[in-house]
Amino acid sequence: MSPSPSLSQLREPNAFLHRHLGPDTEEQQAMLASLGLGSRIELIEQTVPPGIRLNRALDLPPALDEQAALAKLKGYAAQNQVWTSLIGMGYHGTLTPTVILRNVLENPGWYTAYTPYQPEIAQGRLEALLNFQQMTIDLTGLDLANASLLDEATAAAEAMALAKRVAKSRSNLFFVDEHCHPQTISVVRTRAEGFGFEVIVDAVDNLPAHQVFGALLQYPDTHGEIRDLRPLIDQLHAQQALACVATDLLSLLVLTPPGELGADVVLGSSQRFGVPMGYGGPHAAFFACRDEYKRAMPGRIIGVSKDARGQVALRMALQTREQHIRREKANSNICTAQVLLANIASFYAVYHGPAGLKRIAQRVHRLTCILAAGLERHGITRVNRHFFDTLTLEVGGSQTAIIESAKALQINLRILGRGQLGLSLDETCDETTVARLLDVFLGADHGLDVAELDAEVLASGLPDSLLRRSPYLTHPVFSAHHSETQMLRYLKQLENKDLALNQSMIPLGSCTMKLNASSEMIPITWPEFANLHPFAPREQAVGYTLMIEELERWLCAITGFDAICMQPNSGAQGEYAGLLAIRRYHESRQQGGRHICLIPASAHGTNPASAQMAGMQVVIVECDEAGNVDLEDLTAKAQAAGDRLSCLMATYPSTHGVYEEGISQICEVIHSHGGQVYMDGANLNAQVGLTRPADIGADVSHMNLHKTFCIPHGGGGPGMGPIGVRAHLAPFVANHPVVPIDGPLAENGAVSAAPWGSASILPISWMYIALMGPQLADASEVAILAANYLAAQLSGAFPVLYSGRNGRVAHECILDLRPLKALTGITEEDVAKRLMDYGFHAPTMSFPVPGTLMVEPTESESKAELDRFVEAMLSIRAEIAQVQEGNWPAEDNPLKGAPHTLADITGIWERPYSIEQAVLPSGHARAHKYWPAVNRVDNVYGDRNLFCACVPVQAYR
Amino acid sequence: MSPSPSLSQLREPNAFLHRHLGPDTEEQQAMLASLGLGSRIELIEQTVPPGIRLNRALDLPPALDEQAALAKLKGYAAQNQVWTSLIGMGYHGTLTPTVILRNVLENPGWYTAYTPYQPEIAQGRLEALLNFQQMTIDLTGLDLANASLLDEATAAAEAMALAKRVAKSRSNLFFVDEHCHPQTISVVRTRAEGFGFEVIVDAVDNLPAHQVFGALLQYPDTHGEIRDLRPLIDQLHAQQALACVATDLLSLLVLTPPGELGADVVLGSSQRFGVPMGYGGPHAAFFACRDEYKRAMPGRIIGVSKDARGQVALRMALQTREQHIRREKANSNICTAQVLLANIASFYAVYHGPAGLKRIAQRVHRLTCILAAGLERHGITRVNRHFFDTLTLEVGGSQTAIIESAKALQINLRILGRGQLGLSLDETCDETTVARLLDVFLGADHGLDVAELDAEVLASGLPDSLLRRSPYLTHPVFSAHHSETQMLRYLKQLENKDLALNQSMIPLGSCTMKLNASSEMIPITWPEFANLHPFAPREQAVGYTLMIEELERWLCAITGFDAICMQPNSGAQGEYAGLLAIRRYHESRQQGGRHICLIPASAHGTNPASAQMAGMQVVIVECDEAGNVDLEDLTAKAQAAGDRLSCLMATYPSTHGVYEEGISQICEVIHSHGGQVYMDGANLNAQVGLTRPADIGADVSHMNLHKTFCIPHGGGGPGMGPIGVRAHLAPFVANHPVVPIDGPLAENGAVSAAPWGSASILPISWMYIALMGPQLADASEVAILAANYLAAQLSGAFPVLYSGRNGRVAHECILDLRPLKALTGITEEDVAKRLMDYGFHAPTMSFPVPGTLMVEPTESESKAELDRFVEAMLSIRAEIAQVQEGNWPAEDNPLKGAPHTLADITGIWERPYSIEQAVLPSGHARAHKYWPAVNRVDNVYGDRNLFCACVPVQAYR
Repeated sequence: MSPSPSLSQLREPNAFLHRHLGPDTEEQQAMLASLGLGSRIELIEQTVPPGIRLNRALDLPPALDEQAALAKLKGYAAQNQVWTSLIGMGYHGTLTPTVILRNVLENPGWYTAYTPYQPEIAQGRLEALLNFQQMTIDLTGLDLANASLLDEATAAAEAMALAKRVAKSRSNLFFVDEHCHPQTISVVRTRAEGFGFEVIVDAVDNLPAHQVFGALLQYPDTHGEIRDLRPLIDQLHAQQALACVATDLLSLLVLTPPGELGADVVLGSSQRFGVPMGYGGPHAAFFACRDEYKRAMPGRIIGVSKDARGQVALRMALQTREQHIRREKANSNICTAQVLLANIASFYAVYHGPAGLKRIAQRVHRLTCILAAGLERHGITRVNRHFFDTLTLEVGGSQTAIIESAKALQINLRILGRGQLGLSLDETCDETTVARLLDVFLGADHGLDVAELDAEVLASGLPDSLLRRSPYLTHPVFSAHHSETQMLRYLKQLENKDLALNQSMIPLGSCTMKLNASSEMIPITWPEFANLHPFAPREQAVGYTLMIEELERWLCAITGFDAICMQPNSGAQGEYAGLLAIRRYHESRQQGGRHICLIPASAHGTNPASAQMAGMQVVIVECDEAGNVDLEDLTAKAQAAGDRLSCLMATYPSTHGVYEEGISQICEVIHSHGGQVYMDGANLNAQVGLTRPADIGADVSHMNLHKTFCIPHGGGGPGMGPIGVRAHLAPFVANHPVVPIDGPLAENGAVSAAPWGSASILPISWMYIALMGPQLADASEVAILAANYLAAQLSGAFPVLYSGRNGRVAHECILDLRPLKALTGITEEDVAKRLMDYGFHAPTMSFPVPGTLMVEPTESESKAELDRFVEAMLSIRAEIAQVQEGNWPAEDNPLKGAPHTLADITGIWERPYSIEQAVLPSGHARAHKYWPAVNRVDNVYGDRNLFCACVPVQAYR
Repeated sequence: MSPSPSLSQLREPNAFLHRHLGPDTEEQQAMLASLGLGSRIELIEQTVPPGIRLNRALDLPPALDEQAALAKLKGYAAQNQVWTSLIGMGYHGTLTPTVILRNVLENPGWYTAYTPYQPEIAQGRLEALLNFQQMTIDLTGLDLANASLLDEATAAAEAMALAKRVAKSRSNLFFVDEHCHPQTISVVRTRAEGFGFEVIVDAVDNLPAHQVFGALLQYPDTHGEIRDLRPLIDQLHAQQALACVATDLLSLLVLTPPGELGADVVLGSSQRFGVPMGYGGPHAAFFACRDEYKRAMPGRIIGVSKDARGQVALRMALQTREQHIRREKANSNICTAQVLLANIASFYAVYHGPAGLKRIAQRVHRLTCILAAGLERHGITRVNRHFFDTLTLEVGGSQTAIIESAKALQINLRILGRGQLGLSLDETCDETTVARLLDVFLGADHGLDVAELDAEVLASGLPDSLLRRSPYLTHPVFSAHHSETQMLRYLKQLENKDLALNQSMIPLGSCTMKLNASSEMIPITWPEFANLHPFAPREQAVGYTLMIEELERWLCAITGFDAICMQPNSGAQGEYAGLLAIRRYHESRQQGGRHICLIPASAHGTNPASAQMAGMQVVIVECDEAGNVDLEDLTAKAQAAGDRLSCLMATYPSTHGVYEEGISQICEVIHSHGGQVYMDGANLNAQVGLTRPADIGADVSHMNLHKTFCIPHGGGGPGMGPIGVRAHLAPFVANHPVVPIDGPLAENGAVSAAPWGSASILPISWMYIALMGPQLADASEVAILAANYLAAQLSGAFPVLYSGRNGRVAHECILDLRPLKALTGITEEDVAKRLMDYGFHAPTMSFPVPGTLMVEPTESESKAELDRFVEAMLSIRAEIAQVQEGNWPAEDNPLKGAPHTLADITGIWERPYSIEQAVLPSGHARAHKYWPAVNRVDNVYGDRNLFCACVPVQAYR
């Protein structure tokens, strides 16, 4: 018999690697050959400076295949215990409608989309976000809402910053109701520390005693009490201070909204609108304010504008403000949102509609009424007089016994000091829950029956004076999609408008839109990960702890850092958290005077904003002509700062897409002046396995898990920005007031609401690293190869602005459109929009250099897709040539007309180019045409006529 | 305090009902009002004959909400035990690539699509099916393949029927290798019984002793032996008989394919190509034959043709043959396929590619080699000399001990008589599996090490003379999508071409395209349901048993029958199974002479085909002018048949869409002549909760779980057609040779390969009934309301052909296009194709009456969607008027030009109507344009130039 190949010959140790990488070995070879190279090693030698090269395999366990990795993680998940968590504090059980679960949260059409910077190919999620804003406006009773913030606690901190910016009061004091959620208080305190605001946390009755620029109140408060806020708000207004109110969305279906009580800012979490608790996140915070403060609103706002045909078109409003964050004048560094989660919450409202939501709220409240009455009959004193869903109870010496009874029934209560216990009911609770709670509190012989109580108890727990009377969700979108068939089709209609990674590459410089593999995504909706309360006892979260600790070890191995802080739930949040650690470190060494932060001119706008928020003074360091940090200028400014030097913030490879040769020297200069080095991790995808931030000289760096480590962009969030630190900074990272974290000092405040940030998406990054193992380096190498391949193919048509060693770029490259603009009037925006006609998402526009496009192909794009992009770009270059040669007018050509829509070609066609040239400019477009939903959007019109709520139906006609 | 509404006031007992129904209460009221009615009761009184009305609630448990139903079913699922099943026999562990799992099996874009009768809006799944055919052709080495059959056993029976039809031999004897799988032998025997063929099951060495018209061989055989079939095939050909070979797809990657050995027909299951075992199904069987037999090929074949622009376009080939099944001359009644599963298998091949598949096959084989060598060293005798993945072992007296050891490790082996045990390895097995098996067979002290064996063992288990040398899967599609990103986009590109329920209503008369709710679909991919072997010990399938038994009780309550047989895995299969039961019943009473089956002229084509297959003689009963069964003719023919009368097959409501008043009388006539009544269950959706087949007088009926009970159509399968029977027929339904079923007689053969048919999709119907409870009646009422609403709205423009009591239709209605055709030349096909331009799937065309469209809206379509359909149809009527009035030429107008594609409007436009009229004829099309991928497909060209494999890439240029 013939021999059969042995198992070792048949082994495929990198099974997943070959799924993750776009080009296979043969295609890589062809790409290398086109660059005149024989191997990837050669490319890396020509690219990454030798002094910082890792030159060994990452210290990670061998790659697992997909089934093995899923099995291992399932083993961890099984060690989580999903109890009934009635802890409340802003996190509640909820039921994700399965049509939304399956068709949004588990659908790459939604989760792989990018932030809607290019509105023409994002009208679907923009509409969903507009619904979210409308829902927020309706339920809070305010004028204007944004499209979500990171969590309730940071939203409260943003409210404080807004208050400081717009309040006429000259006070530097911010008042916080002591009955706000503790994590909110902690985050507000942390944030105030950076800004230099004073914060007083006190009983609201003491508010009149203070002169403040604003106050944060909670309604209903953390103990469930519902207070008429009008007198307090009047007092605040009397002193020209702002009233900010944290609230609970579900309660507002039956309670007078804070906006009607006079609040200026209203915020909270939309988690309980269908988004699983996920051990802390991600969830979307909502944020609404009065119209007069709209230009001070943090975060993204979706607004209504019109397109080139005058049709209704949505887009991010006031976007220039966002793209050019106010840098060193910032009072917010927020840049991402929680789009996927905001959309789930808005779809939850669309699916249930006003009557359905009201019934949910009434039912939760009624269950609470019955429980309250039962407890009262047996003499248990309630601390809060009024309530919606939350009861705080005096149980005195029985506390321990009650907690034990609850444990026996796998129920988590909120444990308070002074013999008190708290509980919050939610839509997953029912009669059985109430009956069990009666048993827990009263013992088995209480003789109460829930049905009897239901018949007997009449009173509501809501104050009569605060019953909701105003209507809400009256826009037809909240009433048209209540059958599952209708909902399914609505979701599909919106999805069909958008271009996501499941249709085309999204070659976004600095955003690393790589594969979000199915096997990485599957675990996040396992109930064992999805349904844990962030403040559940740690022993119920053993699986989470194992997974997080392992992920931390792996990230340490990848970055060279000694410790990881998982709390920051966005990249900018990571910057801020890292700078705070530096600040605390200096202070701990009695060097509190170190407050100057050096930032290269090419930095992301979030860098100076974060520095400002951490109380630092920003000094800009110039770049040289090659785009590198000007070492001389850096040295001079470091020297000038002297013992006031806090740190440098640097991105590596640089935002110009090159591995700066001088990076180690730069770090040495900073260290020699007693400063710390913060490395912006946006470009970490070009480092993994090739070099390490800590080895280069960084003391702290954030990792965009949503860029390098495969968390999908979700259409504009969630992000996740944990920081790695060297040992000396480890004591100074964020801790948490409710769930103490091992490592950081106990006194450190929180930067996010939940102890481990958006814990429920960490399995994605865990899976990615488990599946790749040391072969993560291959991904980096192929990403660099792809960028260099594109640069080489395109540089003849569009000059590549910066390059490093041997003329190579890193993992992205900047194409300079300015020369062509000077010649023809065709701009980078025209090219970006024209790419849509070819079925591509535009590259990053005008960052970091105005008039350019920055292209990052990532390792996951196949050679065929790269070639398709090259073909499109060269075809566009040929179109520009036609303009240049005068064959098409400068103002009427396929570039200025882009993107083209169906409406263009079905009406009268009077352009100097053909319909086919307009909409089918490539073979791919002919075979798989993607249609932008609207023509080019008019941003200026929209910003001048700001309208950020759902559009009346007749406007579409 | 104000009172709060009580729980009982807030209770929503029908939470899911309101998600399932399209129109809400208010919309229903409006629809009723437009019919001049005040209530649904009034409508039902005007519609359903009083004599058969149920007039009480169904005896079902109260409806559960979605969470409760999922929790209850999860409780059942938890009682299944997922062991390592190495039982083989055509069912193997497999790994569904998660990108396919999530984006096909769990994606409504794929699973809610209908059979691709309308190819212009089905090019995506047609391409996937063409890939399936190409894969089958390549791997089997034959000329032509179909697009799947129901399972391996029925495919074998189809092969026998084909052989009988085409073989030149005049023999009536079919030879079956005794080493075929036992369930295959049973199904072939059953089928032969109906046809009146003789079957001999014997050792293949005895083949020369028989004169046969064909033979079924298995390669590798059920015990794993691999025999060179050439001598046997030569012997068969010498006697002008056909050689049919059942085979294993994975083995063909390393073994010479049966086609190259001379086989005429090759068949088997594609299950192990990524489709979960699912306790028996659904899976796609493949079926290939020589080119000369193509017109005798059973089932659906996808073929290549061209469209009106001369472009490549796919469609079901030889479709006229299918739509008009050969009725009383049929040798097959197959009408559906297993499209969703065939597509998964084809995508599995696309994703792995030829090299990846070969590696999987080699690895499975190598593991088997190592195990075989280890066992051999310790003296265990192997029965099969050669092997691919299956070993049959002599263990003598140790059998029980070995089985116990295997149990301890949760391993299922195949238990054979005579002290033998069998096992088959699969792609989920690894070194650990082999090590455990060595322990199981040899005890712990065997001293063997898998790695050492891997180093030492050289020999392959494959015969040298049968090593595969020919290439396969050389079409580029099998090499272009190996990265997950590429695969994801390929799946999306195909999905985008197709119109499924997630985009539009599919108003198909007789096909009941209702909501397939997410909560109904979620359980089918739970591992506890997905990963069970159908022949696993019953004690491991307790959850399945509980679920199936409960579903059976519920179906009995709904139909009035006494017992259910779950085995038939399609509607036509159900007909056949039911008629067999009738036949056996008559025979048991010594009335074997009863073989006449009366069938109304309006019946589905499958009815006479099934009757023919059950050995019955079909006599057609005429219909009267109102479309009802002509009672006089029926009585005369029943009388004429006398003691030769076996049964009547009737559909209720009739295929004409009306509740025939005489149905009870019809049943009485049949019974009075000693006949049985078979009720075709296609229209059961108009009966549930309003009347019951058994109450009407039926003795047996099938239920299309994929119509009435929410199993999605999957783009053309799976279906599921269990039968309900009255007690006297219960002993005569199908049993199973491997897993004996309680109830039917032990001697009854199987009709399908698996004991409970496609068990893994039964949770869908279980969920539906659990969620609806007695409110199932509401669904029927709203379905009838919707049909009558449409009929009333449209009858002014298009005459409704038949109606019943008070001018009402049942749950569907037939629109007569013949008068307009006579006037204008516009046909029902023109209207069907034109509806695509409006974004609709066409209704059923020319069934049951040529020149008509049959519309069934179902209860799940909202009033808005119904109105959109009415608007489109009236707009089309106005277009026809333009033709009528001579404003547009009879041969050049939007109807004849339909469907319009992007290619139409980007080229030169020289038609007498505008581009806008062509492609944006409605507001909905303007807002949510769906593009047919090709122009009208030329069926005649395709059938004349039959080409059923993947299209060379250059053909698309």
